[in-house]
Amino acid sequence: MSRFTEPQHPDFQAMNTSLSFDRRLWPYDVAQSRAHSRMLAACGIVSAADRDELLSGLDAVEAELTGGSFPFRDDDEDIHMAIERRLTELAGPVGGRLHTARSRNDQVATDVVLYTRDQAARARVALNGLMETLLERAERHIDWAMPGYTHLQRAQPVYLGHHLLAYFWMCLRDRRRFDHVLEACELLPLGAGALAGVNFPTDRDLVARELGFGGVAPNSIDAVANRDFVLDYLAAAATATTHLSRLGAELVLWSTEEFGFCELPDAWSSGSSIMPQKRNPDAAELLRAKAPRVAGHLLAMHGVLHGLPLTYNKDLQEDKEHLFDAADTLELCLSAARGMLDGAVFARDRLAAAASDEMIAAVDVADLLVRRGMPFREAHGIVGSLVRLAEDTGRSLSELKPEELHSRSERLDDEYYAVLSQSSWLESKISAGGTAGVRVREQLVAARRALAAGA
Amino acid sequence: MSRFTEPQHPDFQAMNTSLSFDRRLWPYDVAQSRAHSRMLAACGIVSAADRDELLSGLDAVEAELTGGSFPFRDDDEDIHMAIERRLTELAGPVGGRLHTARSRNDQVATDVVLYTRDQAARARVALNGLMETLLERAERHIDWAMPGYTHLQRAQPVYLGHHLLAYFWMCLRDRRRFDHVLEACELLPLGAGALAGVNFPTDRDLVARELGFGGVAPNSIDAVANRDFVLDYLAAAATATTHLSRLGAELVLWSTEEFGFCELPDAWSSGSSIMPQKRNPDAAELLRAKAPRVAGHLLAMHGVLHGLPLTYNKDLQEDKEHLFDAADTLELCLSAARGMLDGAVFARDRLAAAASDEMIAAVDVADLLVRRGMPFREAHGIVGSLVRLAEDTGRSLSELKPEELHSRSERLDDEYYAVLSQSSWLESKISAGGTAGVRVREQLVAARRALAAGA
Amino acid sequence: MSRFTEPQHPDFQAMNTSLSFDRRLWPYDVAQSRAHSRMLAACGIVSAADRDELLSGLDAVEAELTGGSFPFRDDDEDIHMAIERRLTELAGPVGGRLHTARSRNDQVATDVVLYTRDQAARARVALNGLMETLLERAERHIDWAMPGYTHLQRAQPVYLGHHLLAYFWMCLRDRRRFDHVLEACELLPLGAGALAGVNFPTDRDLVARELGFGGVAPNSIDAVANRDFVLDYLAAAATATTHLSRLGAELVLWSTEEFGFCELPDAWSSGSSIMPQKRNPDAAELLRAKAPRVAGHLLAMHGVLHGLPLTYNKDLQEDKEHLFDAADTLELCLSAARGMLDGAVFARDRLAAAASDEMIAAVDVADLLVRRGMPFREAHGIVGSLVRLAEDTGRSLSELKPEELHSRSERLDDEYYAVLSQSSWLESKISAGGTAGVRVREQLVAARRALAAGA
Amino acid sequence: MSRFTEPQHPDFQAMNTSLSFDRRLWPYDVAQSRAHSRMLAACGIVSAADRDELLSGLDAVEAELTGGSFPFRDDDEDIHMAIERRLTELAGPVGGRLHTARSRNDQVATDVVLYTRDQAARARVALNGLMETLLERAERHIDWAMPGYTHLQRAQPVYLGHHLLAYFWMCLRDRRRFDHVLEACELLPLGAGALAGVNFPTDRDLVARELGFGGVAPNSIDAVANRDFVLDYLAAAATATTHLSRLGAELVLWSTEEFGFCELPDAWSSGSSIMPQKRNPDAAELLRAKAPRVAGHLLAMHGVLHGLPLTYNKDLQEDKEHLFDAADTLELCLSAARGMLDGAVFARDRLAAAASDEMIAAVDVADLLVRRGMPFREAHGIVGSLVRLAEDTGRSLSELKPEELHSRSERLDDEYYAVLSQSSWLESKISAGGTAGVRVREQLVAARRALAAGA
Repeated sequence: MSRFTEPQHPDFQAMNTSLSFDRRLWPYDVAQSRAHSRMLAACGIVSAADRDELLSGLDAVEAELTGGSFPFRDDDEDIHMAIERRLTELAGPVGGRLHTARSRNDQVATDVVLYTRDQAARARVALNGLMETLLERAERHIDWAMPGYTHLQRAQPVYLGHHLLAYFWMCLRDRRRFDHVLEACELLPLGAGALAGVNFPTDRDLVARELGFGGVAPNSIDAVANRDFVLDYLAAAATATTHLSRLGAELVLWSTEEFGFCELPDAWSSGSSIMPQKRNPDAAELLRAKAPRVAGHLLAMHGVLHGLPLTYNKDLQEDKEHLFDAADTLELCLSAARGMLDGAVFARDRLAAAASDEMIAAVDVADLLVRRGMPFREAHGIVGSLVRLAEDTGRSLSELKPEELHSRSERLDDEYYAVLSQSSWLESKISAGGTAGVRVREQLVAARRALAAGA
Repeated sequence: MSRFTEPQHPDFQAMNTSLSFDRRLWPYDVAQSRAHSRMLAACGIVSAADRDELLSGLDAVEAELTGGSFPFRDDDEDIHMAIERRLTELAGPVGGRLHTARSRNDQVATDVVLYTRDQAARARVALNGLMETLLERAERHIDWAMPGYTHLQRAQPVYLGHHLLAYFWMCLRDRRRFDHVLEACELLPLGAGALAGVNFPTDRDLVARELGFGGVAPNSIDAVANRDFVLDYLAAAATATTHLSRLGAELVLWSTEEFGFCELPDAWSSGSSIMPQKRNPDAAELLRAKAPRVAGHLLAMHGVLHGLPLTYNKDLQEDKEHLFDAADTLELCLSAARGMLDGAVFARDRLAAAASDEMIAAVDVADLLVRRGMPFREAHGIVGSLVRLAEDTGRSLSELKPEELHSRSERLDDEYYAVLSQSSWLESKISAGGTAGVRVREQLVAARRALAAGA
Repeated sequence: MSRFTEPQHPDFQAMNTSLSFDRRLWPYDVAQSRAHSRMLAACGIVSAADRDELLSGLDAVEAELTGGSFPFRDDDEDIHMAIERRLTELAGPVGGRLHTARSRNDQVATDVVLYTRDQAARARVALNGLMETLLERAERHIDWAMPGYTHLQRAQPVYLGHHLLAYFWMCLRDRRRFDHVLEACELLPLGAGALAGVNFPTDRDLVARELGFGGVAPNSIDAVANRDFVLDYLAAAATATTHLSRLGAELVLWSTEEFGFCELPDAWSSGSSIMPQKRNPDAAELLRAKAPRVAGHLLAMHGVLHGLPLTYNKDLQEDKEHLFDAADTLELCLSAARGMLDGAVFARDRLAAAASDEMIAAVDVADLLVRRGMPFREAHGIVGSLVRLAEDTGRSLSELKPEELHSRSERLDDEYYAVLSQSSWLESKISAGGTAGVRVREQLVAARRALAAGA
Repeated sequence: MSRFTEPQHPDFQAMNTSLSFDRRLWPYDVAQSRAHSRMLAACGIVSAADRDELLSGLDAVEAELTGGSFPFRDDDEDIHMAIERRLTELAGPVGGRLHTARSRNDQVATDVVLYTRDQAARARVALNGLMETLLERAERHIDWAMPGYTHLQRAQPVYLGHHLLAYFWMCLRDRRRFDHVLEACELLPLGAGALAGVNFPTDRDLVARELGFGGVAPNSIDAVANRDFVLDYLAAAATATTHLSRLGAELVLWSTEEFGFCELPDAWSSGSSIMPQKRNPDAAELLRAKAPRVAGHLLAMHGVLHGLPLTYNKDLQEDKEHLFDAADTLELCLSAARGMLDGAVFARDRLAAAASDEMIAAVDVADLLVRRGMPFREAHGIVGSLVRLAEDTGRSLSELKPEELHSRSERLDDEYYAVLSQSSWLESKISAGGTAGVRVREQLVAARRALAAGA
């Protein structure tokens, strides 16, 4: 018997109900109810017999949920009420004891933090998989020359393996971010009650241990008002998908006829409804396109929390859909990135031809002058003038004549021509982290070690 | 002598120049140039004499910048070029040697990571200060009763100290987030060159040590393309300001005539241009209003990086204004939060009166029935009917008659009236993290320890 | 027979398929296919017999979709392919003629613009309904005094009718924004083909007329790359929900025990899972909470389009879910706002008591001095000092003594006390758009006229 | 003499002051004060003599502001107070009369709406300029063949003029959006007072006419709480810069060595600090990079307004920096787009070579079969198999032998080879809005007319 006299308006029900999306929380809700039941009995708040009936009832409920036979009802407001309602139908009035010393406020927070923890762990696994693929692909293409770009202009040649490893380090930082999400999920909200704690001498540590938490949230108000872990997850997912959007954009670019650096596998490409010749990099485009979606969820969640007085407010119900869709999106994106990289076939000749564009050795010529004692700025200016001379006369740099070189600087001799031969450009980048083969191999070892350290 | 024949269009210069905002990076630019000069000499790339001239020149440049006499020029494209240009004017052609084995790409990344590191450290200090104030204020008001709210409805009474401590734990998580930003700043980009490493046998570890880094970025491509640390800083700042927006909103609310829970200090209030009686909580409103600004910067930065091919692209220049304004905003907000809390005068009587609203003991009455063996759901229903009876007849819960109680449940006896007396509501919330005095004092100790652990 | 040799990866299918969400476009897809078939026959591109078979087939497909018996298949990539596939099953090979002179690129754009147009029209209708309710409620409370707030501080009294009408004008601007969305939907994309136009002498105007467009998109490239109408819809929806979030926030505030200005209807309120006394304004909170969700969709869509080369890219598939969820959310919010306002019961006494807070007449006292020749700034200062005197001595403004007034200004006589009587404060705001009764009634007339003009 | 006893905290002043950014509103503030003074006199609220002194004083203030000699003071809270303070210094106590019948709330709203109106008008002018350039460039390249892309894959050839015109129509829609902003600025807020109207019989229409408004805001509460015009401006600017980001991205792409479709002018390009050969499309990259910044401002402004109770709150002060930076950014972007397009040199041969890729005629072959009676889907499949045959055997489509064609379909005869000759692909796209020359010329005429209609 409620204090209300009028039934809820159907539009209000449509707005208020969360069952359509929060039902995926059921495994967490059942798990916490089990732990809660055991704790209530351990603390003498319910009897052992009641506990056993509750646990049997929860088993039955779980079986129905797993098997798809759970009878949802239109007036189940959310998954928590649906489960408690069904428990009471199956187990009898003892079901009404389950909500002792607990409120929906701490119950929901607990389900959501458990879900977030699982998703962060899943993201780590998927990132590890992607990193493995990146390492494998990098090793396979460790000495394939390609142009490195700045401003999307060919700048200096690098090895494809070196380029692919750049994504490895992004993923490694992403994994660390999900480690931080796990930290943000380490304290149990359950037991905070509606907001002030509960009237029973509960043992929250017991519940925390059973559910795998590191401890209990130290302040009941904060426990029910806190959604930092959702923000942290969304921020980590937004950064990860932003990284993947860069990869997607590069794969789209490299798959153009103009670049022609790689061909994506059939299994990750589409045809056209009217152009029979098309092989469209749809998966790579979607990889690029999904990042704003996750960033949009992050922003929206900040918006929800903005200026929200403590403690629980219904506004917090908005946390779930943003979180769920971000998690689904991230999972798909990580899988797609791995699948595409795994099957991508790179065009060694096209890459090498682009990398041997002589213009991109200009800085090496400048450095030659530096090694002969000229300040870098002066050397930069001289080479700039050679570039202009070559362009104006329609020649390549190596077609300039010795006397033309001398007129610019006496220090330009035959080594100039030697520097313009490709392999030296790559192998001369011997600084730590550089593209010289020895450095890339060193990097590969470090990457493997880093991957293993968090596997 | 450049390869270009036409001068830059003035509108392009206006768009391209970053000097107006990146000049605040100068201390970092000078510091890295010093470390770079020493390393070049240590590795035999420049002579000891050149190094000394470079260092003296940098001293002179720094003195001008510190003293405000540095002669900026209209065609200085950015702070890096301005400093190098001035160095060459002051120190002569040796200035041209400074850019050996370095590119603007790794130079800029290094300045920005140094700036971010400093700002994260500053944010930690300011958060520690705010947490101290919160602890002091919580202790001072440790046993002042006030209503706790859910849905902005009075729900259960809590102590003001307990409520204030909720913000403490948010700040503690914020501090941890800035610890993670510091981790994200631990690897030195310098030495990556334009993107591929450099043609000289440099010692990046030497530079890293001098500048306080934990190591060097392992991949030159990633080193110049990476702005994760900016995203991490912005995400941490967005969450921190979102927390503060909740505090600001509560202070605005509590300062209304209707709530009347606190009065903000004159030093943090404004008058009205036409209403002489007004004391406006402008600072609290701005605290509320600034969070979307920082979230906007975070979003914009995600947008900038979205789909951006490796390695450096000019788009990355957009990192700075978002970062700088976020850092300035966060600093002001943390200071304002502390100042307002520090001077806020709480109205003990108003708080207590609101907390003694009898209706908010309803759950305690239900729990009384639970302790007498009734399932919680049944108890909840019975108390709901009592609430309705009281409302319908214009009485308070304690004005209901014993026979009216009995007609609902035989288990309702005189303890019903005892439960409705205020102090018991607060002190009965004895679960860990609850609002009972002993729990709040316990929490205060834990909070002090946590604060000290990261001071 | 396709050019591909490998089947699509299941993860790619999961990412690529849009059927789960774009199936709601089917009515538009069927409608455009009908119009397209008729046009093809009218232009002699297919025969009249083929047209008739296509139209019969489309009738059959529509019947299945309406009746829920349409046999979707797992490998239907999207609703467009599903419908064409089914059409061919039902109508035979002639179904393969439907895609003549059309591509999925212009087909999708057409479906989405038709959907957007419908949703803009629906939003107008719902806004009109809400405006009607606002007018009705404003008229009903046209002379109920309440405090007007600035900075959430009581500032000057107004009539509740005047306050409610403020929302009317916001809605009116929202309606105009949706008018602009309709304008943005006025040109037909269909007929642009993949991007370049088609190889047949089609009559696009015929299709445009049948589908209710004002004309045809003048550039085939823009026609398939353009999603401005989605941005326009999302921007309009974001502003409308932001307006509603202000209303929601006020309803939450007014429903607090502290304000006590209104009670929301049971039909739009919730109880608590553990606090039997609670009447929570969940619907109002959700009204407040939904705005960031729509703004998040807007931002995400800007992100999708950011830096996207022409013409069609798969990224554009992301338009739909943002659009659909925004439309659903807006519809619920508009309905909830109307429902809550409709049933809200305002507390005349509480409003009046708050409005008669004497302090809020301070500006009127200052204006009295102005009318007696004192510059406003001087008057403002004098009244400020009276406020301080009253506060310091614990009196109200009307309890100050005549001699205390005189010591501040000789121009303060007995009219001072008259000004402090409440009704004059309200009725003296006689400027156009002000809160004086005559002005509010005038406003009501203007509002009615404006509403009718766009009904 | 204020009611406050303590001075403001310096950090509060730093947070509270808006002078550093709102000073650019001074021309609007002076203009509205002039109009307000005249109205006050016309209505008999101040004397004609007072009015004249106020107007002379405002002239003097304006002269100082124009000349840069205006003495700003540290404690000027904002531009409005600075001007009034200075006016009183220059004109004497009469300056204190200026604030009669006006509040800072309506004053600020009026300045901001005037500023927004001006910026919308400026954006229209700049858009018109860009559209002129687009028309000129389109006409100049009206018959240059280039590949049209979908999924960044060559799809069908188009004329460069046709592609450039796609941007024209985007700009035209942008211009219409700014027309709507002008509509959103059509009602004068001034005269609404703090929120409730004023105590004087003012003539708001007089002020509206003098300041060029179409009428007065009909509700005083809405007048001071409304910032829709800021949202509308930001939304229009976000869409316009998003369009420009697509153009920027294409120019970056086309400037690559791989595409080689155009060379940007020296005046809009940069060199590299270490790579002497580089010509970097910095302006095009910034064009791409600025859109998220404006979208970030839009989002932040939605955030500021989210859940904000009526009427004026200090939060609204945040409107200005978002608006100002968006306006500055848009202006630079429009200028840069025009400048780059104006000087871009397109490479006719590279474009033509890319456009003659035979594969992109595949759809035309399919359409040939359709014209011979085959359903499109069947034709699509046959051509798909020809594409695969050609690819598998390393031949072009035109190298396939007649018997190979026949084995797929008897309807494939010599016209197959004719269709594969380039010019026919372009000129056969004769549907309205298509790329056939006659259609593009038709489009050019329509575009000119549309441009002129809003010039």
